[in-house]
Amino acid sequence: MRFEQKWQGVRLSDGFRFDARVPGNIQSDYARAQNWGDVNYGLNFQKFKALEDDAWLYETRAQYHLEPGERLYFVSQGIDYRFDILIDGEIVFSQEGMFTPVALDLTDKLAPGDLLAVKIHPHPKRAGAPHEDRQQADQCLKPPVSYGWDWHPRVIPSGLWDETYLETRTSGFIRDVEPFYELAEDYSAAEVRFEVDADAPVEITLYDAEGQAVGQGREMHVRHPRLWWCNGQGEPYLYRWEARTADDRKEGYIGFRRIRLVMAQGAWAEPAGFPKSRSAAPTTLELNGRRIFAKGSNWVNPEIFPGEITPETYARHIALAKEAHMNIFRCWGGSGINKRAFYDLCDRAGLLLWVEFPLACNDYAGTPHYLKILEQEASSILRRLRRHPSVAMWCGGNELFNGWSGMTDQSLALRLLNKLCYELDRDRPFLMTSPLCGMAHGGYTFYDDAAQMDVFQLFQHSKHVAYTEFGVPGTPDEDYLSSFIPESELFPMERGGVWEAHHAFGAWGEARWLCLDVLKRYGCRLSSLAEVVEYAQWLQCEGYKAIFEEARRQRPLCGMAINWCWCEPWKTAANNSLISYPILPKKAYFAVRDALRPALFSARIPRFDWKSGDLFSAELWLLNDSPETVSGPVRAVLEIGGTEYELLNWQSGPVAANENRIGPSVNFRLPEVNAQRMTLRLISSDGLSSSYTLKYTAPEHVLSRQMNV
Amino acid sequence: MRFEQKWQGVRLSDGFRFDARVPGNIQSDYARAQNWGDVNYGLNFQKFKALEDDAWLYETRAQYHLEPGERLYFVSQGIDYRFDILIDGEIVFSQEGMFTPVALDLTDKLAPGDLLAVKIHPHPKRAGAPHEDRQQADQCLKPPVSYGWDWHPRVIPSGLWDETYLETRTSGFIRDVEPFYELAEDYSAAEVRFEVDADAPVEITLYDAEGQAVGQGREMHVRHPRLWWCNGQGEPYLYRWEARTADDRKEGYIGFRRIRLVMAQGAWAEPAGFPKSRSAAPTTLELNGRRIFAKGSNWVNPEIFPGEITPETYARHIALAKEAHMNIFRCWGGSGINKRAFYDLCDRAGLLLWVEFPLACNDYAGTPHYLKILEQEASSILRRLRRHPSVAMWCGGNELFNGWSGMTDQSLALRLLNKLCYELDRDRPFLMTSPLCGMAHGGYTFYDDAAQMDVFQLFQHSKHVAYTEFGVPGTPDEDYLSSFIPESELFPMERGGVWEAHHAFGAWGEARWLCLDVLKRYGCRLSSLAEVVEYAQWLQCEGYKAIFEEARRQRPLCGMAINWCWCEPWKTAANNSLISYPILPKKAYFAVRDALRPALFSARIPRFDWKSGDLFSAELWLLNDSPETVSGPVRAVLEIGGTEYELLNWQSGPVAANENRIGPSVNFRLPEVNAQRMTLRLISSDGLSSSYTLKYTAPEHVLSRQMNV
Repeated sequence: MRFEQKWQGVRLSDGFRFDARVPGNIQSDYARAQNWGDVNYGLNFQKFKALEDDAWLYETRAQYHLEPGERLYFVSQGIDYRFDILIDGEIVFSQEGMFTPVALDLTDKLAPGDLLAVKIHPHPKRAGAPHEDRQQADQCLKPPVSYGWDWHPRVIPSGLWDETYLETRTSGFIRDVEPFYELAEDYSAAEVRFEVDADAPVEITLYDAEGQAVGQGREMHVRHPRLWWCNGQGEPYLYRWEARTADDRKEGYIGFRRIRLVMAQGAWAEPAGFPKSRSAAPTTLELNGRRIFAKGSNWVNPEIFPGEITPETYARHIALAKEAHMNIFRCWGGSGINKRAFYDLCDRAGLLLWVEFPLACNDYAGTPHYLKILEQEASSILRRLRRHPSVAMWCGGNELFNGWSGMTDQSLALRLLNKLCYELDRDRPFLMTSPLCGMAHGGYTFYDDAAQMDVFQLFQHSKHVAYTEFGVPGTPDEDYLSSFIPESELFPMERGGVWEAHHAFGAWGEARWLCLDVLKRYGCRLSSLAEVVEYAQWLQCEGYKAIFEEARRQRPLCGMAINWCWCEPWKTAANNSLISYPILPKKAYFAVRDALRPALFSARIPRFDWKSGDLFSAELWLLNDSPETVSGPVRAVLEIGGTEYELLNWQSGPVAANENRIGPSVNFRLPEVNAQRMTLRLISSDGLSSSYTLKYTAPEHVLSRQMNV
Repeated sequence: MRFEQKWQGVRLSDGFRFDARVPGNIQSDYARAQNWGDVNYGLNFQKFKALEDDAWLYETRAQYHLEPGERLYFVSQGIDYRFDILIDGEIVFSQEGMFTPVALDLTDKLAPGDLLAVKIHPHPKRAGAPHEDRQQADQCLKPPVSYGWDWHPRVIPSGLWDETYLETRTSGFIRDVEPFYELAEDYSAAEVRFEVDADAPVEITLYDAEGQAVGQGREMHVRHPRLWWCNGQGEPYLYRWEARTADDRKEGYIGFRRIRLVMAQGAWAEPAGFPKSRSAAPTTLELNGRRIFAKGSNWVNPEIFPGEITPETYARHIALAKEAHMNIFRCWGGSGINKRAFYDLCDRAGLLLWVEFPLACNDYAGTPHYLKILEQEASSILRRLRRHPSVAMWCGGNELFNGWSGMTDQSLALRLLNKLCYELDRDRPFLMTSPLCGMAHGGYTFYDDAAQMDVFQLFQHSKHVAYTEFGVPGTPDEDYLSSFIPESELFPMERGGVWEAHHAFGAWGEARWLCLDVLKRYGCRLSSLAEVVEYAQWLQCEGYKAIFEEARRQRPLCGMAINWCWCEPWKTAANNSLISYPILPKKAYFAVRDALRPALFSARIPRFDWKSGDLFSAELWLLNDSPETVSGPVRAVLEIGGTEYELLNWQSGPVAANENRIGPSVNFRLPEVNAQRMTLRLISSDGLSSSYTLKYTAPEHVLSRQMNV
């Protein structure tokens, strides 16, 4: 039986005492008690800087009732980051690492009413780190994102961030049951084996989704198992197991599936002279023998204070991703590991997870201390998550082979992770990092100054086996902006204040993420906040559609399109996410949802920016990554200034499951019309229609005529 | 005490009985008994095809004497490949794998005079392999080279290939002692630890090379250890340890050094946009903190029958490599692992070893059986070799990421090897295979048809961090050729006979390795064997010099130049090796020895082929990969048809240790002279001089004038 405790927090430097939420983060509790106001508002987040080197206590007077023969445990699923557990001031346990659960037998140490405390040490900061940034976290397993990123404020949380309670256990208590299985090569059967951690005899039954028992015992043979499929390819079918002793019961589930990372079709031929699988990493996902196109988003922490994330938060995000036809989240290494509910929900939703260990953009030197903590934490993560069918693959972390990180194949940390994944979870793929050769991270803006290309051009010129980060920034609606930017600063937006602190300027170079220079390039006069917002959202929508659809057209050489990023952990003034904090879909979300429909007519438009007299052209495609044949007629219509021009009719004919077909190209000399935009519509039935609103520039004399009227 | 046995061999299919040499290979013994003649001669090797699916027995009547209290062991350092050990017909032990030693306690099973036998099973051949080639070996740990290669006949050996004997052991017997050490970051001390496998107390003393004791016990602190250096960089200093019990003594040595694979200087900057350490693998060797240029050769099996290799064979090869200023052998994976003497000799010679596991050019599928044998054999190899300071790095095998192999980062076999190397030998670098991105294998001919470049041009256009295979073929002297080619076939050389069987034709494409097309390109009339030999040797010498010196000039971006290959296991009619079988240095050996001198003046000549009227040019360089400063004056002289033209004098000034300096370029309009070759000489003192003999073509009228005289 579990006994939740009422906890108080103490800031040790001044003895300030306050109510603490568990699970939660101690800094957030403190701020609430001090009435610091919403961390999202203005520059409030900067107040947390003062707490970075503090130590904290969680204290409670133990409340529980022990029956004869029972034992008492202190249990926590995670304590962030270095901590001691004390009873009446005596340390009974110490640990470094927030992903390794704690289960302490306190039967002989604790009595009801005793003072139970958890001391949280100051945040780790590597001595000698040159700046106050992520490099301070390069010798610990704390998510580096909270040390500051180009989309995340520097606010470092700690504390009892996951479920924590006292638990009384009978002799029949089941500590853990974990299922393992081997699928027959032809999927005709599964050999299931349960590992059980309990002192009493345990009976296990496996049920199908209809509740029929299909097997009993610690080992069972399941004939013709129903397979688990990801969203869009089939049902994420789960079997349920139940384990019982005389006085305990645990349950869980199994999703039978086989997953591999294979070379993209065509990738073995590149480069021609001496083909190497290192030139283009194997990044095409094969699920149950079927090559699928992985489409989705980079998942980051949805809260600055991960301790405050609830299952409901996860559930709403995952439902939105599923509705957007996504089948994968890349769980970005900078943000750490989620609570269990996240993985359970993804299992049920059929959302594949690319899970990164908590390393990002640093050179994690293989010191003995670091390797020890890494082994402990990575092993805990592997043991916690390997039972989830949604977990598709492991990855060492984010951008570790890039110049600013400086790691290589020889880095002991990555060799250790490869080793642990092999030992503890051999059948799941492991990538050392992302990107590898042949994969792309970026671009992140609508127009690339270095390449002198817009995103339409950039991605049509690109040839990669996986796009695992790319983004187009946008800004949220005016009323949202005014919820955290003081009215005096709202317009004009300028550097140095709240806009900048919320990533509109200087996040990466001068202009990002608001990118006023790009908006101006396409005619925005920056005359009002409304105009800026409308322009930024237009570019974000059209840019994201262009990239996602181009990546899909590049199938089968390309196997993944995963944008940067899904959501944001606080209110940003501008960035690349599809969902505003806390869970508000941006216009770009709906554009991406359109681009990711299982089947759609798509136009490959050479560029975004057109003017009268140009020869407009576009290839028509029918994209199909559904497991069914699709077909349809389509009509291509260009609308400029209220006039519609019929360009083409195409009857696609049947297009097989998980294949694309290229159709004819339209060619059309653009007329002189008084307009600033034009819209290409591909009109079909069955939800296959698409439309693209592009920049159009009329000649001077047409525009001046208008002004004279 | 060891008791060598007298063994007889039995071919089980026909009961034929013969004397067997131990160590040795059973097929070679059988051939000797049947008077098959020298395997090198003519087509004799083809007779071995008939033995491939045979099983064999080694038999002996046990000869030993056991004192009271002693135990009797059967010991073998290696039995090739799948075998049973029998006493009077009863199987007492079985094993698959030739690199895992056997030590069987037979005290209670064997009596003097009993029939002790080792049954050798037929060679493993993977069922379903499409051809009779290396693919038959892709589910076993047998060196694939013996299944046939473009320089190796198909002759598959097996048997008691390494030391095998009966041994009586007292209770004080020392089974093993292995030293481990940790060097202080600044090399000021070493913490040494001995792992001991013995039942009695063992006393250990460590001595320096002068015989002074520097420490005692199982753990010791060595202050200011003398470091082990590779050939050319310092002394390969070895400490000697001695371990004693009351009635046994073992000794060994330690070479203190730290070795790492680091990114080449400049490699982080490539590609400019998004630098990745996967674009150019870390392949610069850093020994004791000093970046060194690795120069050497690919080591292959020096005998078709590895069981017959003696320590003397190894010693003569290693001495030649050392004299040629080499500091590394890449022990190519196709050939397997050597006997212990090889590593001992390399330790003493300061020859670094790049050691590959026995995988090459196949897709080793990660079946449960294969992974089990791989783990057993790789672990044995690691435990045997990790004590050798010469072993610089591990590598998964040869060309596994290339198209014809089909392995990737996801291949379980390579992930397992990474894991084992990390667990058992963490501080040695591990590469999954060679080449990786940024590294080059090839070219292998003097003129590359596809690139339309000679090797001078090809390598000057190349930009790699490591050249780990490249070759220029040549042919041995006439009298050597006539030692294995019947006189009737000697000239003209033609396809279909002994020339082809010995790799002169059709080894890889039509023309290799004799490459008559290339010889003709440079004016060889193919008029006599003598002319062909002279031409082929000229091109091999000049080609090898050009490549090795160009690779050195590309330092520091380039860190390795390792040619294909050092020696050959039988008499070839043409190939890329520097040493003919058994141990005869080719002319190319001496050319390479010149090109690898620690310091030399070197000319960067744009191409090999010149004609009168051409503007001849060449950059002068002083190459220095010695640990000392060098300098010198140099005079560049071009000699054509007996006339010498003075081109340039250059005073280099002091060039620091392990650095190169570019000097001036010569420019010279080539005169009309009646000659077919010309020689550029860089004349200096102190052994820094070099010379290059190039192709020169006189104009028609000069040649006809000559003919008229």
